[in-house]
Amino acid sequence: MDNRLINYFLKITNLTEDETKVLTESMVVKKFKKNDFLLKEGLFSNDTYFILDGCVRQFKTLNGNDITINFYTEEQWIISLENFEEKSSSNYNLVCMEDTTVVIGNEQKAQELFKQFPRLETTSRQIMETVFMEQQNLMTSYITDKPEQRYLKLLETRPDILQRVPQYDIATYIGIKPESLSRIRKKLNKKN
Amino acid sequence: MDNRLINYFLKITNLTEDETKVLTESMVVKKFKKNDFLLKEGLFSNDTYFILDGCVRQFKTLNGNDITINFYTEEQWIISLENFEEKSSSNYNLVCMEDTTVVIGNEQKAQELFKQFPRLETTSRQIMETVFMEQQNLMTSYITDKPEQRYLKLLETRPDILQRVPQYDIATYIGIKPESLSRIRKKLNKKN
Repeated sequence: MDNRLINYFLKITNLTEDETKVLTESMVVKKFKKNDFLLKEGLFSNDTYFILDGCVRQFKTLNGNDITINFYTEEQWIISLENFEEKSSSNYNLVCMEDTTVVIGNEQKAQELFKQFPRLETTSRQIMETVFMEQQNLMTSYITDKPEQRYLKLLETRPDILQRVPQYDIATYIGIKPESLSRIRKKLNKKN
Repeated sequence: MDNRLINYFLKITNLTEDETKVLTESMVVKKFKKNDFLLKEGLFSNDTYFILDGCVRQFKTLNGNDITINFYTEEQWIISLENFEEKSSSNYNLVCMEDTTVVIGNEQKAQELFKQFPRLETTSRQIMETVFMEQQNLMTSYITDKPEQRYLKLLETRPDILQRVPQYDIATYIGIKPESLSRIRKKLNKKN
């Protein structure tokens, strides 16, 4: 049995024995290989992912080029709400940058759980608030920070990402060309 | 009594008489004048706003210049979750572009409501999902769309905004200089 999702919940709230049991029983754990897709642009999905281990890159293809929107690693949620509501197809891809293990949830299953255990809905709402908050900060940073600042933020808050994904993906995430990222890194190396 | 928030809820879910009563009683309606600030960068706030009428601009100041992050109008929620969780100060401003009337909610009051009426938590979660979805789409658009596409999307999905706010704010929202926006508009006018 994999306790990591339960341990994650326990950081947010206490769980009764029944709640722990039903959460554990309802957990669907799935393993993906490096380069596997969790979701492709244009396909439909209601799934939500909690990453147990590994790294997933969210990207969009534009004129034949990848543009990285976000990276997700251990204990992060990938919530694709656009798909819940409008039943529209995904406008991005999710690809594994490493062998990756996730817990897969979906809205329908969650609703059934919430009916039995309303307290889990509160926890779910709190998780969504946190994910939403991260998203808001990411967007504000994307709109207002210069590429160099975005690189420094990544270095400060998620240094592991820089070791785990190719420079090319870091560059498109920051919104610049790989050559420009090299220049930024050289400049920063000189400073230190 | 102002029914507009109740009517909004009724689009999402049915409400019992008790739920309608408690929602109506707990509603705090506040009127702001054009140019009033709902929130300033650096200040703390736990408030959430539902706009009854008017228009609010979310922006950040960078090197003395405004950068517009979003516009909010009738029936939209402004949810500043970053403040719920970390008790950090706001990293943006909210200013009224017109005389604006809002319903103000906050997390603590919401929690009390949810204890009495758990079904309202489900509705609240659904609303947050919708707001989150809009935010995700906005971010994806910001990262992947060219300025002209962003302008066309605004024209298509929120044509009223173009009438309600100055061109300067439209330009910083799209991520370009006002001169570039003029060029885009001229080019589109020629096409039509």
